Amino acid sequence: MTEREIQGIVVVGDTTLSNPDLRYVVGGNLARGGIYVKRLHHDALLATSNLDLGTARRLGRVKRTSTFTEWGFEGIAAKYGRANAYQHLIKSILRSEGIDGRVSLYGRNDLAWGVHLADELRRMGVRIAGESSPTTLERARETKSRREIENIREVGIKTANIVETVLNMLRKLKRKRGQLYFDRERATVGLIKKVIASKVGEADLVAPEGTILAIGSSGADPHNSGLASDPIKEGKLIVFDIFPQAETGYWFDLTRSFLLGRADAKARSLFDTVYSAQNAGLDSLKAGTTGEAAMLRACQVIERAGYKTVREVFEGKAKEIQSGFTHSLGHGVGLTIGESPYLSFLSRDPLKSGQVVTVEPGIYLPRYGGLRIEDTVLITGKGVDNFTTLDKELEIS
Amino acid sequence: MTEREIQGIVVVGDTTLSNPDLRYVVGGNLARGGIYVKRLHHDALLATSNLDLGTARRLGRVKRTSTFTEWGFEGIAAKYGRANAYQHLIKSILRSEGIDGRVSLYGRNDLAWGVHLADELRRMGVRIAGESSPTTLERARETKSRREIENIREVGIKTANIVETVLNMLRKLKRKRGQLYFDRERATVGLIKKVIASKVGEADLVAPEGTILAIGSSGADPHNSGLASDPIKEGKLIVFDIFPQAETGYWFDLTRSFLLGRADAKARSLFDTVYSAQNAGLDSLKAGTTGEAAMLRACQVIERAGYKTVREVFEGKAKEIQSGFTHSLGHGVGLTIGESPYLSFLSRDPLKSGQVVTVEPGIYLPRYGGLRIEDTVLITGKGVDNFTTLDKELEIS
Repeated sequence: MTEREIQGIVVVGDTTLSNPDLRYVVGGNLARGGIYVKRLHHDALLATSNLDLGTARRLGRVKRTSTFTEWGFEGIAAKYGRANAYQHLIKSILRSEGIDGRVSLYGRNDLAWGVHLADELRRMGVRIAGESSPTTLERARETKSRREIENIREVGIKTANIVETVLNMLRKLKRKRGQLYFDRERATVGLIKKVIASKVGEADLVAPEGTILAIGSSGADPHNSGLASDPIKEGKLIVFDIFPQAETGYWFDLTRSFLLGRADAKARSLFDTVYSAQNAGLDSLKAGTTGEAAMLRACQVIERAGYKTVREVFEGKAKEIQSGFTHSLGHGVGLTIGESPYLSFLSRDPLKSGQVVTVEPGIYLPRYGGLRIEDTVLITGKGVDNFTTLDKELEIS
Repeated sequence: MTEREIQGIVVVGDTTLSNPDLRYVVGGNLARGGIYVKRLHHDALLATSNLDLGTARRLGRVKRTSTFTEWGFEGIAAKYGRANAYQHLIKSILRSEGIDGRVSLYGRNDLAWGVHLADELRRMGVRIAGESSPTTLERARETKSRREIENIREVGIKTANIVETVLNMLRKLKRKRGQLYFDRERATVGLIKKVIASKVGEADLVAPEGTILAIGSSGADPHNSGLASDPIKEGKLIVFDIFPQAETGYWFDLTRSFLLGRADAKARSLFDTVYSAQNAGLDSLKAGTTGEAAMLRACQVIERAGYKTVREVFEGKAKEIQSGFTHSLGHGVGLTIGESPYLSFLSRDPLKSGQVVTVEPGIYLPRYGGLRIEDTVLITGKGVDNFTTLDKELEIS
């Protein structure tokens, strides 16, 4: 916190669900959010709605809890309106904490309201400082504690089990008149996705962003989540990318690409190249190295096999590429499914032990399909600890 | 948009998942988010990552789509850093759209970054305006289109089916030596929650905020989601509050409270009072009336039965109340599970046809338990169209 010369931090929001900074500092889920204030070198203070005080105390992360009511919310809201109560509550808390220096505001909120809040607080004499991303709090969240690592590992084990169950189910599909069936139903992307969703629920996970199960040409667009009506067919590449979240708030990200039956030479080349690129990336990751270096290693493998990579764009040789390795190598995973640190050509900060990142090269060929392999790993002083032990196989049958 | 004299709006974010404003304007889910710019009386323009361009075009809501790359992202990011690219991209787009008047920034993002973005844009001469909540875009989102209403109704039908399935399952629990069993397993809150989660998945829904299933004293805290190890017991009040989201992005909110076996006089009084309070609230809702009026009606019913309500707090007669009706009557539902309009003592704006709100009075008695009944309804010119036709019964057996 000292680094940017701020005296205090304020984290606000009316929910912790889509507010990872607030969830991080309060240590769990508060349905109506709250106001968290920490003065440098002092204990933090948390104000919540009456409804959430019990939960806030059970979470126990912040010792000094109070309610909005204790800070006079109802009177302030009656005078200034509910929406304008925040700046007055924050100002009161800052004053009572003796904070009169620079303050950073955190929490994921609507920007129009955030700009209004900052303008109003500034008008009241509070010295609000903006921060470029990654912010101080995002940087704090980059490095995971032992408890956080165990939370992520646990989601990883459950996620791998789901993938294995689905692969086994795909292996058991029955062929009838040239089409694949599960029990008596035609095996489609939609049917398999229903099974995945049910397994996610049974495992006490949620997948609010859905799951990618894309077959054939759908897989050529890395974020096409797959067309429900597409039939599962032999010989066609399937990209299965699953990213669930546990009740702890922690996510996991895992992709396997494969096909039923026999692979043609094109699919084999994609698989071998992406597999090698992932290993090159994984081998180069270690505390002290950079995301840029890992990205470069993966690109080199892919380029040597004759495919394009985004390096061309970053080196100014092309405005964009239509095929090949079109995205970056990975991203952090924690209380969000995509956060700092990133593994891209712009990632020049040394990686640190305790960071958790995905390593997910992919190659995409328009009209043909795509192939991506992704593990989520922990950066250590010696290399990586791969949370995913699941096999990587092209042909499953 | 004219109302606040802004010439353009900018909606930004690196994901649409936890960014309802961005999801609303682009018409669906973009994994990496984007920059949406609309000049008053002109067609909107959307810039996305290369990865999401295909999805953005499929969604079709914004006709003028482009990629960050086309706006020079890679060069800008190489020069100013990835995090500082946004203000330069936004500035370029505003210039090319001929916007030089007041601009509001929307999208749910980290405030520290949002304040930085606004400060930088202002430094470049852009006239950024803050807005108190509900913002212009939140107000636009309050009134649902026909398509949005159908999306919400559809989640509602699925949600009611899940509740019915769970109630039927509870009815079939077997009593052995004074304890309740499901198949051979002891019936606990955790076991029933697993069944709920699996049903949510099978219905193609997600419940990223979890589900409340609280029995006995746990239910006295309106946001206690229930203790997994708590056994299901006869005669104890159970609060079952489920709030899932569909792939369309739309949510639903439904609560039933009940008990297995016979109710004592206390439970019966809670049920009858809350049931009547909900009807009083529902009866008073109509386009043109206010949330405050509905809240007042519900409080009057509850007070007449001898319980406390938050009215005491709003009228300054108490600093807070420890039991009774401790929260407000309801909130809007749409691309978020809690949004404007609210039904509270602070809700003085006339309600409009097309708004979708919950009506959810509850009474909470510390150490004993709680009882809440909640429907999600559409405000119409004549009254309400209740999306929930599910029975309200105290005793299920």
